[in-house]
Amino acid sequence: MTENLVAEALRGDRRALARLLSLVENGGLAAQEVMRLLYPRSGRAHVVGITGAAGSGKSTLIFSLARALRSQGLKVGIVAVDPTSPFSKGALLGDRIRMQGLTSDAGVFIRSMASRGAIGGLAPATMDVITVMDAVGKDVIIVETVGAGQDEVEVMDAAHTVVVVTVPGAGDEIQAIKAGIFEIAHILVVNKADLPRADILARQLAEFVNLDKPDGWHVPVLQTVAIRDDGVDELVAALQSHREHLLQSGQLDKLRQGQAQHRLMAALKEQLWDMVYQACQETDAWEEAVRTIAERRADPITVAKGLIARALSLKAV
Amino acid sequence: MTENLVAEALRGDRRALARLLSLVENGGLAAQEVMRLLYPRSGRAHVVGITGAAGSGKSTLIFSLARALRSQGLKVGIVAVDPTSPFSKGALLGDRIRMQGLTSDAGVFIRSMASRGAIGGLAPATMDVITVMDAVGKDVIIVETVGAGQDEVEVMDAAHTVVVVTVPGAGDEIQAIKAGIFEIAHILVVNKADLPRADILARQLAEFVNLDKPDGWHVPVLQTVAIRDDGVDELVAALQSHREHLLQSGQLDKLRQGQAQHRLMAALKEQLWDMVYQACQETDAWEEAVRTIAERRADPITVAKGLIARALSLKAV
Repeated sequence: MTENLVAEALRGDRRALARLLSLVENGGLAAQEVMRLLYPRSGRAHVVGITGAAGSGKSTLIFSLARALRSQGLKVGIVAVDPTSPFSKGALLGDRIRMQGLTSDAGVFIRSMASRGAIGGLAPATMDVITVMDAVGKDVIIVETVGAGQDEVEVMDAAHTVVVVTVPGAGDEIQAIKAGIFEIAHILVVNKADLPRADILARQLAEFVNLDKPDGWHVPVLQTVAIRDDGVDELVAALQSHREHLLQSGQLDKLRQGQAQHRLMAALKEQLWDMVYQACQETDAWEEAVRTIAERRADPITVAKGLIARALSLKAV
Repeated sequence: MTENLVAEALRGDRRALARLLSLVENGGLAAQEVMRLLYPRSGRAHVVGITGAAGSGKSTLIFSLARALRSQGLKVGIVAVDPTSPFSKGALLGDRIRMQGLTSDAGVFIRSMASRGAIGGLAPATMDVITVMDAVGKDVIIVETVGAGQDEVEVMDAAHTVVVVTVPGAGDEIQAIKAGIFEIAHILVVNKADLPRADILARQLAEFVNLDKPDGWHVPVLQTVAIRDDGVDELVAALQSHREHLLQSGQLDKLRQGQAQHRLMAALKEQLWDMVYQACQETDAWEEAVRTIAERRADPITVAKGLIARALSLKAV
């Protein structure tokens, strides 16, 4: 059944893709099966993280960017991790997307992770959603986050190119610069650049942010007015230029090694934990172990070793 | 050898105790052996967490509290997790303690965790240090933290009674109240109460902090001038009254169950991780696994399952 879904999604069926994404979000054995089938087909997409405070207009920028990428014939996936994103607004979403001229276009697929119901954590589930979109042939996957919280930092680790969006007149630009928020960017965007002070903000960013990265990449500071697509072609060009830089400099391979290590550790912890948890569920072993420690009959490590030995022998039977 | 050290520490040998504490801080098999021998002897001490910002005079308060407890014949352990604490200042510490009339007193033992060199994390190492002091017969163990950071929150979970120390005129009292910092307290102390505004601060705390806890405990708001021992006898009485409340209400048992569960989960994760890590170290399995994932030859969960199966079969040999 999962294999049929995968085959349909690979042929471009949007409903099959939506169901696969739900499966990986829900976790468990079905998710493992999807990943087993699709992970080996992934690795080709350009994963672009776009982050910025609420009000920076990053959703409008993503709409505009998606249209620009489509006009080049590229297939686009959008993953919204920001619960305040219009992409996450359920019923309203349909209208807004139609308004932006995206829905009837099979080349754009949007998924919101806003439910936060993901078993095993938001970050791992988001990585799996990215992998599935990648495997079914999206060329560019845009991940939108609001840029706060540990989960979102982890999600940004999955991106090849990070775009940080800011707007003039937010008042706390200097605070944000001091806090180092812009240091994770490969591309800086001053959106709503038709507002006063846009030039000043762009100059401040160029002055106070370290734009020359150790790997030789120079962070461009772009100005956009996303609502009328101004500057968005330049953003597309900058994304492609950063992708090229990653390939040429060997950074992409390093990034992949790092991400592989990260995912292996997460998978190991999840599997080991499941093993012991399941073995404990089948018996009263867990409650008995907690009582043993609480009543000081044995120390935690000795009790843990006993539980593991028991879990392994149950597994071996 | 460890058994000899344990026997000497149980007889009250301070150098043996110091060496045991170093063993548990360094982790590994020696730490496990110490815990195996001493954990079953622990569980009698009253663990008191004392937290407050730098400048609140909490170290002076702890000196004064330790002397008051000693004068009742109680044995005292002090664990300083705050790196800015005078207890953590190495060379200077000797003088300061002598000055406070504590060193020549075998009933007080001080340990600083400020090196942060603990393998496996500060919080687990601190819990083990508390357990060892408890097992060798300290009646009250005072844990000093600066009250910021995840590690310190975890350390406070190990305490039976949490004392939050504040001072008048710090300026940001209302901010701190809003941030809920005082909500974790079982006892609130306004130290340096000879300063102006001490009464106002005490009244603000009584007004804006929820002093009536769900378990029926009413949080007292005490005023102290630790530098001249004013109000410290009242603090001792409040500590003993809270301990009594925990015993009478059955809360102490609940607390112990919760802490046991917490320690079991930490021990399980540590043991499982060690098992797989060791098995990987002995071979090139880890590097090969990372490469397999990076090159998309297989998905992370499948690779993790393979590593675990391998680790377990090596274990079984």
